[in-house]
Amino acid sequence: MKKIKNDLFDYEELSIIQNDTSFKFSLDSILLAEFVNILPTTKKIVDFCTGNAPIPMILSTKTNANIIGIEIQKDISDLAKLSIVENKLSIEIINDNLNKALNYIEGSSVDIITCNPPYFKFNSSSLTNNERSKSIARHEIETNIDEIIDTAFDILKDHGSLYLVHRPERLVEIMEKLNSKSFEIKRLQFVYSKEGKDAIILLIKATKKGKKGLKVLPPVFIEGLKSYKNIF
Amino acid sequence: MKKIKNDLFDYEELSIIQNDTSFKFSLDSILLAEFVNILPTTKKIVDFCTGNAPIPMILSTKTNANIIGIEIQKDISDLAKLSIVENKLSIEIINDNLNKALNYIEGSSVDIITCNPPYFKFNSSSLTNNERSKSIARHEIETNIDEIIDTAFDILKDHGSLYLVHRPERLVEIMEKLNSKSFEIKRLQFVYSKEGKDAIILLIKATKKGKKGLKVLPPVFIEGLKSYKNIF
Repeated sequence: MKKIKNDLFDYEELSIIQNDTSFKFSLDSILLAEFVNILPTTKKIVDFCTGNAPIPMILSTKTNANIIGIEIQKDISDLAKLSIVENKLSIEIINDNLNKALNYIEGSSVDIITCNPPYFKFNSSSLTNNERSKSIARHEIETNIDEIIDTAFDILKDHGSLYLVHRPERLVEIMEKLNSKSFEIKRLQFVYSKEGKDAIILLIKATKKGKKGLKVLPPVFIEGLKSYKNIF
Repeated sequence: MKKIKNDLFDYEELSIIQNDTSFKFSLDSILLAEFVNILPTTKKIVDFCTGNAPIPMILSTKTNANIIGIEIQKDISDLAKLSIVENKLSIEIINDNLNKALNYIEGSSVDIITCNPPYFKFNSSSLTNNERSKSIARHEIETNIDEIIDTAFDILKDHGSLYLVHRPERLVEIMEKLNSKSFEIKRLQFVYSKEGKDAIILLIKATKKGKKGLKVLPPVFIEGLKSYKNIF
């Protein structure tokens, strides 16, 4: 396993350490980080499935809030810690399953949760990548949308928000689960590769015990974007 | 009440009779008619809340299927019948509440249902238009999304589809209701006034006992559209 250091796209001030064989951070994480609406009152942010921590790193350029990333895979969470040191950031990384969040983080204490979760349902017939590390990042092996939403509910303050990026085809079940946990879906935004094509990425903002009022934000087209920074 | 005869936008072969005081057909109906996917096997189409029948009229230019419109308001259904005669079309208009559909239409017999329903919840504090006719078309006074979906389920064949146009902010409850009635949401499409603005119109295709598989179709921008005909 070779460690490589990449620029974090347009965030010239940041570099991120990944290895060339395990799952690398993706555009989805950048879109999610940009989709988040940080307020002056935001004190604590938690990123589930943080991987090598691209989302916490980007958010750290936008806020002085306390930022925590949770990653189940030891080797990847070690890379995250390495990047954080290299970039002289003060982000805390927890190496555990996100469903153990309450062991580390006080209940009802978090303002914002972000999560770029595994997108694909896991069953015995799932085509999983040979390498277990990549499979865990892509498939719902160690976590799933129900656990993510349940845990988010536990640690979010009332009126705190969960920001999720996912596949559009999972929208219905995500909405149902959010609804069943007293989350109000406040924002949806769809990302398209280019005009005339179906959406490829779904961004959701859901607020714990939030007021009713859903907005579907303007579509985003990847093609032709000059920069991902501040695209929303 | 003065009857006026308008062109039905780009459908040069059609003219539609409306009166200058009651609720007139809108762009939403045209978008919905264009959103519908009629198959060679489509034999029976029903349009709920048909008004002066813009949707049946447009669909009649695309198929030889049997088309029925249901409209609760007598005077508006009379205008629909007048337009149909003037345009020499063979569309049946039923003047009744759509929840009585089973009195006229056999259960599980319909291939496609379309509906441009009243968009706004009705309660005593709702700002309703002084004129009752317009209020019924805009507010959920005589029908509501639950009744529409329940009745659609009753008269649709298995694998028949309900096409709805609505406000994006009602998406969550519409999805929940569809889910609870064994409808599978197959297509979502959002319509925007122009780039950079939130969506103003939601188009949904839901299939009774359909297979899983949601697609979010390309966004549509009203501004700059040269024609509504065959926009999808």
